Amino acid sequence: MLELTLNLPETDLPRIVVIGAGFAGLTFARKMIGKPYQVVLFDKNNFHQFQPLFYQVAMAGLEPSSISFPLRKTFQKAKNVFIRVAEMESIDQEKKVICTNQGNVTYDYVVIATGAVTNYFGNEKIKQSTLGLKSVGEALNLRNEILNDFERALQVPSYDKRQALIDIVIVGGGATGVELAGSLAELKKYILPKDYNELDAKEVDIYLVQGGDQLLLGLDPKLGKIAEDYLRKMGVRVLLNARVVDIQDNFVMMKDGSTIEARKVIWAAGVTCQEVTGLPKENYHRKNRLIVNQINQLLTDQSIFVLGDAAFMESEDYPNGHPQVAQPAIQQAKHLVKNIKKHGFENMGNWKPFKYNDLGSMATVGRNKAVVQLPKFNLRGFFAWIIWLGVHLYALIGVKNRLIVMFNWIWNYFTYDQSLRLIIKPQSNKKETDNTI
Amino acid sequence: MLELTLNLPETDLPRIVVIGAGFAGLTFARKMIGKPYQVVLFDKNNFHQFQPLFYQVAMAGLEPSSISFPLRKTFQKAKNVFIRVAEMESIDQEKKVICTNQGNVTYDYVVIATGAVTNYFGNEKIKQSTLGLKSVGEALNLRNEILNDFERALQVPSYDKRQALIDIVIVGGGATGVELAGSLAELKKYILPKDYNELDAKEVDIYLVQGGDQLLLGLDPKLGKIAEDYLRKMGVRVLLNARVVDIQDNFVMMKDGSTIEARKVIWAAGVTCQEVTGLPKENYHRKNRLIVNQINQLLTDQSIFVLGDAAFMESEDYPNGHPQVAQPAIQQAKHLVKNIKKHGFENMGNWKPFKYNDLGSMATVGRNKAVVQLPKFNLRGFFAWIIWLGVHLYALIGVKNRLIVMFNWIWNYFTYDQSLRLIIKPQSNKKETDNTI
Repeated sequence: MLELTLNLPETDLPRIVVIGAGFAGLTFARKMIGKPYQVVLFDKNNFHQFQPLFYQVAMAGLEPSSISFPLRKTFQKAKNVFIRVAEMESIDQEKKVICTNQGNVTYDYVVIATGAVTNYFGNEKIKQSTLGLKSVGEALNLRNEILNDFERALQVPSYDKRQALIDIVIVGGGATGVELAGSLAELKKYILPKDYNELDAKEVDIYLVQGGDQLLLGLDPKLGKIAEDYLRKMGVRVLLNARVVDIQDNFVMMKDGSTIEARKVIWAAGVTCQEVTGLPKENYHRKNRLIVNQINQLLTDQSIFVLGDAAFMESEDYPNGHPQVAQPAIQQAKHLVKNIKKHGFENMGNWKPFKYNDLGSMATVGRNKAVVQLPKFNLRGFFAWIIWLGVHLYALIGVKNRLIVMFNWIWNYFTYDQSLRLIIKPQSNKKETDNTI
Repeated sequence: MLELTLNLPETDLPRIVVIGAGFAGLTFARKMIGKPYQVVLFDKNNFHQFQPLFYQVAMAGLEPSSISFPLRKTFQKAKNVFIRVAEMESIDQEKKVICTNQGNVTYDYVVIATGAVTNYFGNEKIKQSTLGLKSVGEALNLRNEILNDFERALQVPSYDKRQALIDIVIVGGGATGVELAGSLAELKKYILPKDYNELDAKEVDIYLVQGGDQLLLGLDPKLGKIAEDYLRKMGVRVLLNARVVDIQDNFVMMKDGSTIEARKVIWAAGVTCQEVTGLPKENYHRKNRLIVNQINQLLTDQSIFVLGDAAFMESEDYPNGHPQVAQPAIQQAKHLVKNIKKHGFENMGNWKPFKYNDLGSMATVGRNKAVVQLPKFNLRGFFAWIIWLGVHLYALIGVKNRLIVMFNWIWNYFTYDQSLRLIIKPQSNKKETDNTI
């Protein structure tokens, strides 16, 4: 058995341990490059993943690598930042130690930026019978499942038996659900008739199940209605005020007693946060968000900070906390660095409170179709779509990723046809020999 | 349990079953588009993979999708070609039936283009303790293993214990071995010091083990020597006249009694062919190649044709059969189609014998370093390298793949640094529910 330790260099600098390399953690660590702290960045992956475009990976519109960026490349020139591919297991506030699956590390300060995970509302059965979309790995798996099932559907002569393979149910009418439903509808319209001309594409039904009476909750209801109209025109079966109560043997059971047969149920019905073992209960708000003050400091511990989706910061404008999207995460990270740089941890009394600057929200439904809510006005259609594209390109990390994604989008726009419909998995006939080292 | 059948449409046309969508099978099927035959193309993947560039995928220089092409996209407009993702299990010559893992199909003619597989010389232990490079899946796995091991090496304080994680042994000094060793040396030189500056890149040893006394057997020995010099200058430990006899607990045992400790042993020591269950023994030549006459027809069956790596065709210039590379496969496929088009299967007596037109052989060792053997003269260095790039770009399928690969190469040439060092795997928490359909 090979013994792994975190093997971090000794230092006289205060050590800040950052947990998670999503928008918040990565922004924080990048802004701390060259500052007089030792920054240790943990993530379970060796890359940052750009969550807003997972659905395009799932729909074979982009490659995972186009929306992922190797952490080590980002920090090649950073002498004070150390990256470890590890998962936090617990925190010991008294000894100031973070325990990970790769070993333990002492800290002076901690930045928790663990983000959010899919919310199955405690229903283990739903978790095991649905597909998630909270990592590029899951996106890639969804792509493989969809393509595999189409291949298999060709081989099923009976119409009835084929349905479970080709129909798809998306649960959750937020941005993820809407964008996924829209791009599935485009796959059905533009790709299936060409790639699978032995199948009748009309057989494919796409369901979008939303608990409330509008899509894109949190946006102006008018925009939710526009997105709904777009989707309906594209042939998506939008079910409002509908709730999934159970999933059994490929049958999705709805609250009203109806059922839908589908092998693929995509669960995008909300998020929650992972509990951090070791933190006392009183730190948690609803959905396991950690309660922080206006400088993102944990309620019960001055040396622990929480950023992004995992943080619950109450404010006048946001009594339910900030939306769990990229912007608050990035802004909080930048703000925290600013406070540290200006005053150091010694003078936290002088730190400025965080104020969220809402730049707007948006969702895209398909080509030339998007809705954008800006602070002063709303946009829809082609212009909204162009803004959506621009904002997402700009937000991607890495010049090369931007160029490749742009190239893919332009190619796709004119050809209506990507060439990424590949069912690829890592393969090996090697037996694991770790225990022999 | 969902019952799958091949579910092929009834037809009055003669049915040609093509097994394998490598260079030979794909070329054959493409050239048969629109001809009065029903062509059924089987492959275990839903894509064609461009084998000559697997090593660049393994070295995180290219994405799998850049060198793979979805079969369905190739045949979108082909009404007479049917694709099934299936593996051949056996052939019944009497009943003229091909059995696959997805069901059986009758045939009028068969084209076997199953290519070659890694040759472990019957040593199951070596198979299970080494990594192969005969599919994009294996290439991706190799990439993940290399990156994972570097991450882990950071976490091992002891120099001795670290070696097994970072040293790499390549067995086989053919084109695959040479190209892999060269690009590993470049990874060590250009990438490691930047990405893993906590490690001393000099610790990384790359071994290339060759049984004979020269590299690139089959090419002009002078070119093998040049490749060897290139590699040695790049720091690769080239071991000639060396043979691996056993692998135990991460130790590679050599015939001369020496050992090398390495967790990753890449086996590129030769190829063999898979036996086809049902074909009588007398059809097999060395390494399971199927003996064919000058029109690629199986020795014992006029309705079965064999193309490419799997075929053994004796000729004056090639008493040991054609080299098992792309060109003979492509040329044989084209030639077979020409014979069918001109004379039909009814007049096989008039078919012209195949003649291989050797366009040359080549291998690249690194940037600006390649060797090219043309019928009339040889090339080395920068010009050889440019020719290597051009030929490989030209041979890729799909305009978009060519553009993306070219873009990647140019990017890499100037930045010395790709951004594809991602450890990505498909992920799911879904339990397999197939048996419930």
